[in-house]
Amino acid sequence: MRYQLTVEYDGTDFHGWQVQAGARTVQGEIEAALARLLGHPVRVAAAGRTDAGVHAAGQVVAFSSSVAIAPDVVRRALNALTGADLAVSAVAYADDAFDPRRAARSRRYVYRIWNRRPASPFWRRFAWHVPAALDIEAMARAAPLLEGEHDFSSFRAAGCDAAHPVRRILRSAVVVDGALLRYEIEATAFLRHMVRNIVGTLVEIGRRQRPHDVGPLLAARDRTQAGATAPACGLCLEEVRY
Amino acid sequence: MRYQLTVEYDGTDFHGWQVQAGARTVQGEIEAALARLLGHPVRVAAAGRTDAGVHAAGQVVAFSSSVAIAPDVVRRALNALTGADLAVSAVAYADDAFDPRRAARSRRYVYRIWNRRPASPFWRRFAWHVPAALDIEAMARAAPLLEGEHDFSSFRAAGCDAAHPVRRILRSAVVVDGALLRYEIEATAFLRHMVRNIVGTLVEIGRRQRPHDVGPLLAARDRTQAGATAPACGLCLEEVRY
Repeated sequence: MRYQLTVEYDGTDFHGWQVQAGARTVQGEIEAALARLLGHPVRVAAAGRTDAGVHAAGQVVAFSSSVAIAPDVVRRALNALTGADLAVSAVAYADDAFDPRRAARSRRYVYRIWNRRPASPFWRRFAWHVPAALDIEAMARAAPLLEGEHDFSSFRAAGCDAAHPVRRILRSAVVVDGALLRYEIEATAFLRHMVRNIVGTLVEIGRRQRPHDVGPLLAARDRTQAGATAPACGLCLEEVRY
Repeated sequence: MRYQLTVEYDGTDFHGWQVQAGARTVQGEIEAALARLLGHPVRVAAAGRTDAGVHAAGQVVAFSSSVAIAPDVVRRALNALTGADLAVSAVAYADDAFDPRRAARSRRYVYRIWNRRPASPFWRRFAWHVPAALDIEAMARAAPLLEGEHDFSSFRAAGCDAAHPVRRILRSAVVVDGALLRYEIEATAFLRHMVRNIVGTLVEIGRRQRPHDVGPLLAARDRTQAGATAPACGLCLEEVRY
């Protein structure tokens, strides 16, 4: 039997997705709960292995078990056995061959920036606090220039193990909601730290430290040309599409 | 010199507004920071003395000092001297006689309910989790029946020290945003636990445990007739109008 879960988490108190000895991780928390529920060790796979501090509102996870349990019972048991910063919002049966990472057609991330002098007591866990004034119009002009198929070497972290650096961006946009800026990006797949490197660059554009035209940056294919990596706390994996 | 502050806080880790020996309170946190900044003891007054666990996005606070400091300096110093769950978003000079409680023409509160089976990792500090199915239409029909001037004795907590139980409600509405329900209420003033007692009653209406017509409830003027008090975590003082 193969099962598919939709999972939400506040990443603040997790050391990322991937299981690590001696550290609390999302994968580790789910696998421990499943082992208690099913009575055998379980290995789960995720659509996206989020980094430490990154959140998810629609992570997709799959696992197999010879034990047949109604999806609704799996959901309730997992929510009872995991911390309040992790919730399983849906469980369904999946095809035996379902691989949440390979089967995904696209992923949608949102990066939140709190752009006001004082920090926000409400957004402190879920947004990057940028107190400096930002030229939001320049940021909003720059963002869609990343749409389409490009070589993202300039936005790729050292240690990224992807086979090639070309990615197709379906949407890249800055949306303003009062003091909260949302950078929304959907792509077939992402390179390591790609969203956070793009956001770091967009904020440098907003601070008028670089021009809004990111074309030459993409063409340079050189990580040292783009902006600093934005902090993990602002990033959230919103949705995975199949 | 009299100063007026706009203050936001995540009430989760405060024992309410009012100063208490041995407990962390919003008033205590602000007064301690002001005493450090100004070099003399300071007493502050608030528009609304929120209970333990209640949040504020627009609390208004005033204090007096013989020390003249630019409002912007006061703001920055207070944000540096208080916890991350409290922010001073604005500081201005006020009239010598300014009393934030008496001068207020109305207060606007929002009460948030997370209405989905699994709890939300994102809303757990700021919304009441009601997993049961709710008849939202019945709740939305009931809410505006509270608008206008009424005797709110049925929604008044024991120990409320208000002189009389009549209040004028300017707006009372249920707004739906996915799994998040927002109850919005604006009134000239409130009785003790009034919003939480109204929300507890609305949720009983949503669960079809009582009819949506709250007219007889108001007429009864009897606290035992209305619903249970909703938990503090869902409530937020959004704005005070002058």
